[in-house]
Amino acid sequence: MPQQRSEETRARILDAAVRRFAIAGYDAASVDDICIEAGVSKGAFYHHYPTKQAIFLALMQGWLAMIDIGLDSARQGTVPEALMHMTNLLPGVFAAAEDRLPMFLEFWLQASRDETVWKAMIAPYRHYQEHFAKLIEDGITEGSLKPVDSQVAAQVIVSLAVGLVLQGVLDPHSADWAKTARESMHILLKGLVIS
Amino acid sequence: MPQQRSEETRARILDAAVRRFAIAGYDAASVDDICIEAGVSKGAFYHHYPTKQAIFLALMQGWLAMIDIGLDSARQGTVPEALMHMTNLLPGVFAAAEDRLPMFLEFWLQASRDETVWKAMIAPYRHYQEHFAKLIEDGITEGSLKPVDSQVAAQVIVSLAVGLVLQGVLDPHSADWAKTARESMHILLKGLVIS
Repeated sequence: MPQQRSEETRARILDAAVRRFAIAGYDAASVDDICIEAGVSKGAFYHHYPTKQAIFLALMQGWLAMIDIGLDSARQGTVPEALMHMTNLLPGVFAAAEDRLPMFLEFWLQASRDETVWKAMIAPYRHYQEHFAKLIEDGITEGSLKPVDSQVAAQVIVSLAVGLVLQGVLDPHSADWAKTARESMHILLKGLVIS
Repeated sequence: MPQQRSEETRARILDAAVRRFAIAGYDAASVDDICIEAGVSKGAFYHHYPTKQAIFLALMQGWLAMIDIGLDSARQGTVPEALMHMTNLLPGVFAAAEDRLPMFLEFWLQASRDETVWKAMIAPYRHYQEHFAKLIEDGITEGSLKPVDSQVAAQVIVSLAVGLVLQGVLDPHSADWAKTARESMHILLKGLVIS
């Protein structure tokens, strides 16, 4: 079963990388360290991931794929109902982001100085922007939302989510962030919904 | 005029530090580099700032003081009017934040591993949270805003502002961020204002 063993090796490398990045930081964690932690050879490592950066990007893709699955599963009922369902995803996003915050910060630092990294980091924001603009348009079409500028309304939702995740991760004990997320969306919907 | 000369030295050190942090990064910029750039002795440097960290904190305080002055000057008319005025501050915040983004990211990285730095970084969020909660309460008292939970409404405003600044700095060309800030507040106010 070489295909299955290959998948297992890949998963072991990713798990080891998460642990090493959390302990030593992204910059300080070496490929050697990750290989020892994962119990794989450097040959096996480079077979799966050409660079340490490729691992980071794979981890980020996995995290975003998880959010996408959550967003799709929350897409039930009317658009306002779906938006309220989606706020229930935020506690999971907080939890996943918290472990990886230092790694994200290191990567943003690289992104601020490196065009390629920057493009990889900015893509998800634009992806979510389009996702929510489409959802707002669906709401206008179904007659549940006012005919607002869908791009602006999407930017409000994405900015609010980014701001909530950032504050929830940086200052977890200053508020009940799950409750804040729900009530924030509630206030926002009062301005968007046709009553 | 020793007092005036002392102020000039302090300003020269801060200007030099901003330039060195932008070029080399906060971690890589040495006190020696900053002294050479500023044309001051190390003795003079340490007379004003005990550590490189003290300079970063002074820069951050200066930036926050500027935002506070802007918020106070925008406090005119009713609370909804004041909130709309305040969105005009965001382009200036974007501009100031853009130069300093790598430095902020490096500092957040330290904050994620160092309790003292973390406390210094989190204080402004809590300060703005209280500032906006007070403003929302004023709006409820004056009869312009619905009787919402002022802490939650303040969190929405702060999260939205944080999210807008972050996206505006990281992806400046993907939207007209000044317009987005105004229209975001407009949507939010529709949910808060008594019509």
